[in-house]
Amino acid sequence: MSDVLIVGGSPSESSRSAAMLRLVEQWVRESGLLTRVVSIRELPAEALVRGDADAPGIRESVNALATARGVVIGTPIYKAAYSGLLKIWLDLLPQYALAGKTVLPLATGGSIAHVLAIDYALRPVLSALGARHVVPGYFVLESLAQKQDDGSVVLAAEVDVPLRQIVAEFVGAVR
Amino acid sequence: MSDVLIVGGSPSESSRSAAMLRLVEQWVRESGLLTRVVSIRELPAEALVRGDADAPGIRESVNALATARGVVIGTPIYKAAYSGLLKIWLDLLPQYALAGKTVLPLATGGSIAHVLAIDYALRPVLSALGARHVVPGYFVLESLAQKQDDGSVVLAAEVDVPLRQIVAEFVGAVR
Amino acid sequence: MSDVLIVGGSPSESSRSAAMLRLVEQWVRESGLLTRVVSIRELPAEALVRGDADAPGIRESVNALATARGVVIGTPIYKAAYSGLLKIWLDLLPQYALAGKTVLPLATGGSIAHVLAIDYALRPVLSALGARHVVPGYFVLESLAQKQDDGSVVLAAEVDVPLRQIVAEFVGAVR
Amino acid sequence: MSDVLIVGGSPSESSRSAAMLRLVEQWVRESGLLTRVVSIRELPAEALVRGDADAPGIRESVNALATARGVVIGTPIYKAAYSGLLKIWLDLLPQYALAGKTVLPLATGGSIAHVLAIDYALRPVLSALGARHVVPGYFVLESLAQKQDDGSVVLAAEVDVPLRQIVAEFVGAVR
Repeated sequence: MSDVLIVGGSPSESSRSAAMLRLVEQWVRESGLLTRVVSIRELPAEALVRGDADAPGIRESVNALATARGVVIGTPIYKAAYSGLLKIWLDLLPQYALAGKTVLPLATGGSIAHVLAIDYALRPVLSALGARHVVPGYFVLESLAQKQDDGSVVLAAEVDVPLRQIVAEFVGAVR
Repeated sequence: MSDVLIVGGSPSESSRSAAMLRLVEQWVRESGLLTRVVSIRELPAEALVRGDADAPGIRESVNALATARGVVIGTPIYKAAYSGLLKIWLDLLPQYALAGKTVLPLATGGSIAHVLAIDYALRPVLSALGARHVVPGYFVLESLAQKQDDGSVVLAAEVDVPLRQIVAEFVGAVR
Repeated sequence: MSDVLIVGGSPSESSRSAAMLRLVEQWVRESGLLTRVVSIRELPAEALVRGDADAPGIRESVNALATARGVVIGTPIYKAAYSGLLKIWLDLLPQYALAGKTVLPLATGGSIAHVLAIDYALRPVLSALGARHVVPGYFVLESLAQKQDDGSVVLAAEVDVPLRQIVAEFVGAVR
Repeated sequence: MSDVLIVGGSPSESSRSAAMLRLVEQWVRESGLLTRVVSIRELPAEALVRGDADAPGIRESVNALATARGVVIGTPIYKAAYSGLLKIWLDLLPQYALAGKTVLPLATGGSIAHVLAIDYALRPVLSALGARHVVPGYFVLESLAQKQDDGSVVLAAEVDVPLRQIVAEFVGAVR
């Protein structure tokens, strides 16, 4: 059981999207909340593609969501929307899987031209899943997240400051 | 090489969405155009989940798109949007993979309440892929598509007539 | 000054949309909160069309929003989206006019096929206005709101019960 | 009667949006097509606000649309969507007013962050109006359109070239 589930929708472990999510997970943990991470790319691929919610690994991830009070949903923006990998996992969830939960949507993208994808593409899906309180999301421009040799990212100040603020608001809402 | 590529985004072979797409494929073929089918659920699952466009099977499906002049894109509506399975394949495509092609979006859903998902969720992604001519799509209410013992569907007249019309317009635009 | 501003985006005083909003205003008032109403159709038409935020009447309505903690936004669904009349008023507002406010979006429409317009069309605009907490909205099918001779509506039980619940949640969030 | 109707949704005559539309109108005219212009801000304000499609001026503009084969729809992007002024006119139209017509959507905005508003906000409304062929739209960043003393704009080359191409494609499709 955890307070906050961190769901990663990037197909690549070494992506900026994944690294940024690890950073956010750390901030949430440092605030005193218990966290758990679901990296969708590490779930059984066959079961994801066939939509088998009962497969081992998949079922655990769905249960992890059920017991969390807050959810961070991270996705790269591809083709003007969330990743297919994220949606394939959301499709496995029960109809109102986000009911009563506080949700923080986070996206990364190569161009500021994709920033509206959070509100026009991702939020309607979160609403359909019954989310009661989706806090303001945040879009991180990839060029402002510099990758380090150890796989982590260092955020430019213009991203670091507002993102910490967004995460703090989310933590407050989960409490 | 084919004139029209039919892309199926349903995770289940036995779904109404898949059966309807087989029917549409037959109509397109009967009109004299050459067709080819990509059932995303039959592509290598690992490669889909990792976004590996160069994997065998995946690469073939992407090439099949490159040589087609028309594309039918079929998806069930889940959580107020296209299926994650469809999007995971669209994410693998080159940036302007639909440039110069005529596209027909088709969706199936359990409630008429999801009909706007074609225009609000699917079309913006098709636009991002460079589609020049997306003909009017069509939403089939599942209760109007009756499944038969052999896996096919029989459409109610109120669906059969307009859907044939939509497909005929698409065929005309591809020619 | 008021606790809750009720904003009506229907161009017709005698519409079901307007009548439903009067009902919701009454419920909010009965909960002990102070309410104020802006019927956009009654604001100076010239100033609305020219986008003149400083015109008398317009400025008052913008100030009324600034001091409210909660906002109910009611709109009929036309052409798959919110009314132009609502948007013309939203366009007059300062960039983050909804920052820090709790917002309840309510829509009416002739077909359940338009229900996604709240989440796909209206919510992104409310997000752009800086809304921090948009509670779940509600779509009232017009055939379930029966107009009375006195201009009021009587809601069918299947609408009345969930709508009261939605309004109660909103009132709780404003408090 | 005209071949192409140019519809301007900017509330200000002196806006870049209005100036760009005059430029596009000129290009369409120079291609040999007959054009007509509807500046929504110049229509009777009271009738617009009350949704009175039969008022003089309004009715003429609706009839002008009915007889045109192509339509250019220009709007500034406000609050992450088309202008309310544009939508208030679209709301006055018969249900399938764009059926059989070729439509070119053009938007102007202060930030590239709003570019997705064409596809996520405007196109679904055009689809709901029955548009059969919406050609790729174009978003002009305001900083790339320099206003001249005479009220015209000079476009930077990086806008001028693709916009001329987009307009040429539209003209071809109308023919």
